[in-house]
Amino acid sequence: MLNFEYYNPTRIVFGKGTIAKTGDMARAYGKNILLHYGGGSIKKNGVYIKVIDSLKAAGVHVTELAGVVPNPRLSLVREGIELCREKQIDMILAVGGGSVIDSAKAIAFGSLLPDGQDVWRDYYLKGEGYSISKTLPVGVVLTIPAAGSESSSGSVITDWDTHTKRPVNSETLIPRFAIMDPETNFSLPAYQVACGASDILAHLHERYFTMEKHNDLSDRMLENAMRNVISYAPLALKHPYDYRYRAELMWTGTLAHNNLLDQGRIADWASHDIEHELSGLYDIAHGAGLAIVFPAWMKYVYRDNIDRFVQYATRVWSVSLSLDDKDVVVESAIDRLESFYRSLGLPVRLSDAGIGNEHLKRMAKSAVTGRSHLGNFKKLQAEDIEKILKLAM
Amino acid sequence: MLNFEYYNPTRIVFGKGTIAKTGDMARAYGKNILLHYGGGSIKKNGVYIKVIDSLKAAGVHVTELAGVVPNPRLSLVREGIELCREKQIDMILAVGGGSVIDSAKAIAFGSLLPDGQDVWRDYYLKGEGYSISKTLPVGVVLTIPAAGSESSSGSVITDWDTHTKRPVNSETLIPRFAIMDPETNFSLPAYQVACGASDILAHLHERYFTMEKHNDLSDRMLENAMRNVISYAPLALKHPYDYRYRAELMWTGTLAHNNLLDQGRIADWASHDIEHELSGLYDIAHGAGLAIVFPAWMKYVYRDNIDRFVQYATRVWSVSLSLDDKDVVVESAIDRLESFYRSLGLPVRLSDAGIGNEHLKRMAKSAVTGRSHLGNFKKLQAEDIEKILKLAM
Repeated sequence: MLNFEYYNPTRIVFGKGTIAKTGDMARAYGKNILLHYGGGSIKKNGVYIKVIDSLKAAGVHVTELAGVVPNPRLSLVREGIELCREKQIDMILAVGGGSVIDSAKAIAFGSLLPDGQDVWRDYYLKGEGYSISKTLPVGVVLTIPAAGSESSSGSVITDWDTHTKRPVNSETLIPRFAIMDPETNFSLPAYQVACGASDILAHLHERYFTMEKHNDLSDRMLENAMRNVISYAPLALKHPYDYRYRAELMWTGTLAHNNLLDQGRIADWASHDIEHELSGLYDIAHGAGLAIVFPAWMKYVYRDNIDRFVQYATRVWSVSLSLDDKDVVVESAIDRLESFYRSLGLPVRLSDAGIGNEHLKRMAKSAVTGRSHLGNFKKLQAEDIEKILKLAM
Repeated sequence: MLNFEYYNPTRIVFGKGTIAKTGDMARAYGKNILLHYGGGSIKKNGVYIKVIDSLKAAGVHVTELAGVVPNPRLSLVREGIELCREKQIDMILAVGGGSVIDSAKAIAFGSLLPDGQDVWRDYYLKGEGYSISKTLPVGVVLTIPAAGSESSSGSVITDWDTHTKRPVNSETLIPRFAIMDPETNFSLPAYQVACGASDILAHLHERYFTMEKHNDLSDRMLENAMRNVISYAPLALKHPYDYRYRAELMWTGTLAHNNLLDQGRIADWASHDIEHELSGLYDIAHGAGLAIVFPAWMKYVYRDNIDRFVQYATRVWSVSLSLDDKDVVVESAIDRLESFYRSLGLPVRLSDAGIGNEHLKRMAKSAVTGRSHLGNFKKLQAEDIEKILKLAM
């Protein structure tokens, strides 16, 4: 187990009717609030009006910035930064899923950067070596269980002009509070629920596949969070108005990505980085891209530490084949993973998503641009990534 | 799953050599520090000198208050409160295990109480209806994995004059940071390691046995944390200088009691309250008392929700008997739990600890004094508690 430092101060307010607390919680951080959200879904499902009512009752002044799209765009971030400066915003309230929250985080630190620094060039594009010291406080009303951004330190933004999707990470970006009412998930389209479940599972996979040994508490926690996704995602799709299954998925989504479950180890993240190329270029849903990339990544890397994959196969997928042939044990687990994705209605091959082989080399090259390699379980170069993408054809 | 609010801002600094960071971390909260600890063990194992060196290097002024004993005493808390007021202490650094940390928490809020309020009478004895708004910041260097107080909101103090042991709980009591180096555990006496493991397992049991349904992520996390204690406590005893097993136990001890694992449910806590009577009267180690109380409590209550105990038996203890006779399934699990405690060298009956039946009624009556009942899985009155203590004879 490696040395680690863990700190996560997000206040989670979870359950039915909790959106009514939004106003008071936001008010604690100032009177001038930027309400950041996506398209019309929060207006259709009633979340918008509940949030506005609560903010009004708390007596705060609200400036709105809507229009966040999946794979949130740098252009809107720049607009938000200008708006925060102009309106002297005290805090940003993100109402939506991971895209809205990631966009809010970018605006939150971008608007406090000194003259001459650029949010994209000097942070997202830089990859490492930056330090984010000041941000506006971000609060969240979460409506989609998926990205885990509601209590994570990360933000991923896409520059659509150059089709580049990049993350930043900083403890200062962890939201101050997250209001999570599983009832807001009742009206989500089935495909979005499936993509969310895939994203949650991917966050667990990324942390599970490590070369670090003797970190069994984290292994067990990750395995069981995976089993929870595998158990409850199909039930949430089958019974969309059942609170129990929504609540399981929503809480699992937060714990999958608040960094608690990868302390003492180095997580992988290659599959996320490869997927960023896919969705940066083709604008497919992140969760769908992950369902395509992960099985291919597993097939390419598992022999580098087959015992870790055997543990995964037996503990997560209950594969009970003889260990006399470990390859078969692992392949069975990957088969079960693919069947699980398919059962949710997700693509598991590039062709399922209508993507051909014309840009594999370009994506593989772009993924490592400015980086020495992708991933930590196996350090990948452009030629490895191209092979993984070919396995995903 | 019930609505919940979760917030835990303790910064965990975990691993080899981390004590060197103590000075800088404490310094962030002020220059005038109360160093609170127990007897001589931190002087023998080298922790004291490392802490002092780090504090000196950070340029803080240190006032020492030693002498905390297991079942920490109100008398020393009162002494600490006077000392903090007299020396205008900015923060308290607790170096030790749960007793030292609990004592530090009591001093931390006690020293800021207004005139006319008493730390014992108006808080610990009150049981409920109090609110702790101000405390000195508490930092921790943890040397014993057991109580989980390093990132919990609770503190338990004993008034030795009246043999009364009582808890308080408040979010404001959560320590600001906890430095956790598993190497400090190498020299712990085997009995203390065993008692610590029993305390950790008890924190998991208390949260697991709930009447709340459909909270499966927490169930799974609790079951696996239990399996981790069951796997690694014997290994830590067998190989006391093996870092891996110490690290597993230490991290499990924190997660068992930082409240993460009981969100969305009402935990029980009757066994802890009953044990407080035992250790308040006989001054036995808390973990030993819990090993005596828990099997008896289980035998007394399990029929109130036998399916929860069947889940525990199958998932935690791998009991694979037919469900045609659920009582036998549950009894087998309790047998395995008792064998586990015995394998660690712990008592599982009052008689094992040299305690007779002379005060059972007194303890049972004292346990519910000022309370409507003990526990939540089954609400216990004095006569129930007496029966449980008889089952523990």
